[in-house]
Amino acid sequence: MPQPTVATMDKIVSLCKRRGFIFPASEIYGGIANTYDYGHYGVLLKNNVVAEWWKAMIQERDDIVALDSAIIQHPRTWEASGHLAGFTDPLVDCRTCKMRFRADHLGELQCGKRPSKHPGEDAACDLTEAREFNLMFETTIGPVKDAGSTVFLRPETAQGIFLDFKQVLQFARRKPPFGIAQVGKSFRNEITPGNFIFRTLEFEQMEMEYFVPPAEALNWYEHWLHERFEWYVRLGIERNRLRLRAHDPDELSHYSSGTSDVEYLFPIGWSELEGIANRGDFDLTQHAKHSGERLEYHDTQTGERYVPHVIEPAAGVGRSVLAFLCDAYDEDEIGGEKRTVLRLHPALAPVKVAVLPLLRKDGQPELARHVYEALRRRMKAEYDDGGAIGRRYRRQDEIGTPFAVTIDHQSLEDRTVTVRDRDTLQQERVAIDALAGHLQARLDPVAV
Amino acid sequence: MPQPTVATMDKIVSLCKRRGFIFPASEIYGGIANTYDYGHYGVLLKNNVVAEWWKAMIQERDDIVALDSAIIQHPRTWEASGHLAGFTDPLVDCRTCKMRFRADHLGELQCGKRPSKHPGEDAACDLTEAREFNLMFETTIGPVKDAGSTVFLRPETAQGIFLDFKQVLQFARRKPPFGIAQVGKSFRNEITPGNFIFRTLEFEQMEMEYFVPPAEALNWYEHWLHERFEWYVRLGIERNRLRLRAHDPDELSHYSSGTSDVEYLFPIGWSELEGIANRGDFDLTQHAKHSGERLEYHDTQTGERYVPHVIEPAAGVGRSVLAFLCDAYDEDEIGGEKRTVLRLHPALAPVKVAVLPLLRKDGQPELARHVYEALRRRMKAEYDDGGAIGRRYRRQDEIGTPFAVTIDHQSLEDRTVTVRDRDTLQQERVAIDALAGHLQARLDPVAV
Repeated sequence: MPQPTVATMDKIVSLCKRRGFIFPASEIYGGIANTYDYGHYGVLLKNNVVAEWWKAMIQERDDIVALDSAIIQHPRTWEASGHLAGFTDPLVDCRTCKMRFRADHLGELQCGKRPSKHPGEDAACDLTEAREFNLMFETTIGPVKDAGSTVFLRPETAQGIFLDFKQVLQFARRKPPFGIAQVGKSFRNEITPGNFIFRTLEFEQMEMEYFVPPAEALNWYEHWLHERFEWYVRLGIERNRLRLRAHDPDELSHYSSGTSDVEYLFPIGWSELEGIANRGDFDLTQHAKHSGERLEYHDTQTGERYVPHVIEPAAGVGRSVLAFLCDAYDEDEIGGEKRTVLRLHPALAPVKVAVLPLLRKDGQPELARHVYEALRRRMKAEYDDGGAIGRRYRRQDEIGTPFAVTIDHQSLEDRTVTVRDRDTLQQERVAIDALAGHLQARLDPVAV
Repeated sequence: MPQPTVATMDKIVSLCKRRGFIFPASEIYGGIANTYDYGHYGVLLKNNVVAEWWKAMIQERDDIVALDSAIIQHPRTWEASGHLAGFTDPLVDCRTCKMRFRADHLGELQCGKRPSKHPGEDAACDLTEAREFNLMFETTIGPVKDAGSTVFLRPETAQGIFLDFKQVLQFARRKPPFGIAQVGKSFRNEITPGNFIFRTLEFEQMEMEYFVPPAEALNWYEHWLHERFEWYVRLGIERNRLRLRAHDPDELSHYSSGTSDVEYLFPIGWSELEGIANRGDFDLTQHAKHSGERLEYHDTQTGERYVPHVIEPAAGVGRSVLAFLCDAYDEDEIGGEKRTVLRLHPALAPVKVAVLPLLRKDGQPELARHVYEALRRRMKAEYDDGGAIGRRYRRQDEIGTPFAVTIDHQSLEDRTVTVRDRDTLQQERVAIDALAGHLQARLDPVAV
């Protein structure tokens, strides 16, 4: 049986707050439910996750193009996609405690008056009938509110891709199979149980729609299941804490002929990290019908004409960040002292190298600054001369910095430094002149 | 007198559409005013601009930390910042043509009935009095609309930084002078004259708030004027098409003791690219008052305590992209044939190198694929074997690719290729084994 790491959600939340990775938004005004801000290391980590996704989608293959579509699209988009009619949650109000609950989650929720009970369990509970509420945030374009100017914050990035399918076909000289990839924010007006950044009101998605000849859909579906699963493994997630789970027939959208989730063994249990769906021709057909445009592939040489089918790997940036953090989290002991260490893949680590003068004298800080300033042209580096060396190593271990370079007495004599490895704790002496190349080769062996 | 490039706005819009950099959003539903989607090369270019900003702010200096705060913050944020009361435009309606206009821009706008006239000029115009409309998009958190749940899409990223000032002080072990930098989307419900992506409903900002001891504010203001101006120059913008323009006293916000714009000579004339403001202690003081938190720096060693002053360089991603495109745009002639070329800085170019087999036979495509697949591990590359070689060069010139590698008959004999420079058109033979290093050294001499 696979086991989660030693991380608990509390430990992750606490580390994220203490080191400024991620913390509740608007805290000085009492916060806002299920909304988080990313601090320094959180932004660096998140940007690295997104950059690796782009790299896998765009740089390392040539069948996918990038897109960044607007958050506020024409409102007919959501008529066509079905979100306006069907993207709803059933909610009940309690007339006693005035709280509102997901009707289909009552068994996991706490009664507003007696938290040991579920809503409806206590005699005093007075629940309304369930009503369907749309999860899209609504706003108004132009300064007046009238029916024509109501628009929505997108609940997913995918639809922007379908809207632009025709433009991409035209200018990118593509024929199926090809994909369109996008990273951006989406918004869902949900009542959530709150598992840190697992589900938030606004969240970043990494979605790709892969357009294929209908007969090839199943093969490409399998291809993307494999690709996306292995992406997490390549970036360091332990294989036995990942699994693919095919949706049961009753979980499937009516148009989907197959959906699987990549699940990760979070501290809260196996949960969805990414969904990969075989969406058929549903989306293009719907938008064609609602817009009057022909959304199909037409091969001018063979005369062939068809509506491509779509395979969609849809990942969440926040969830990926959370999974990478949970999986990297470790505790061990060095010289009898407890250590918290993030064993992040070097590509994801917010800081690649720390430069630390052993002493704050004898020219060591000056040489260390010199080494640091040369390194930071090539990679995210940190200079730290505050406190005992062991404590400085701990600070870097806790944010996942793969290498620490220490400048000591010998460095001034022979222009060498020690390079300490976060995981093996091995120290190696390297000439300052060879240091950048040495680190780059260890950070990214493929690219050197 | 500096001159704009040969680019006109029409040429830029046309190139952006033709090559899929940027095009109107929701086009299949008739579009949505002042909203654009970024296509493949547009995303790559935009991501490069943002990465260079992060590099200048975060990687190459150590006095600034990153932040990514939520778009929807607690609504009291906008009471404190003054946006709720004062972030308005004066608008008039015309009862005749039913159009709505900025009351302060009537002289630049067209009458709805007679476009040769300005609104109010024609006898038939029947304009209402001007009324103030708030520019923030409003929405509702939770499924019901009541006063307590009204929230706003942020009209600027800056306020999220002020909200988190205290958290950053705590976890990042910082003392002034230090900065907090953020890139993200903001939203303004504006009626705009529409100059392509110059002003759009949703737009990405790159903002940094630099917190300093009050006595140092003026020095740091000068520092940031210089730094930000030079950032554009370093990335290839012609120095004489940039200028700093200090705001007149009547343009200044009441709390600002100095604001200057970095202006670029766009095809539409000198226009703001970035504003650098000396904001004093206005923001922290306002949020302290409204939240009841102490937002100040307290030096526990010296006992010193003060509210830092703030210098804010606030740039727009879309405007920067537009300026880089306009400045890079050029037309020349090669062998009697007209060429459109984007002379983009290599760091910004969407594609760094194109790999082109001269012929589609004799093993050239196979060798070219091999070269391409090795290169794309390290940089964004494109493989193209479609059409005459001259036409393929033109396609790459038009998207600003700095280098084109051609595989020819000789390549198969001696394992060398030609490297063509987009700007000088010089061709150089380079050994395949040395190619990646050769290109990297020319793309980024500093980092090698």
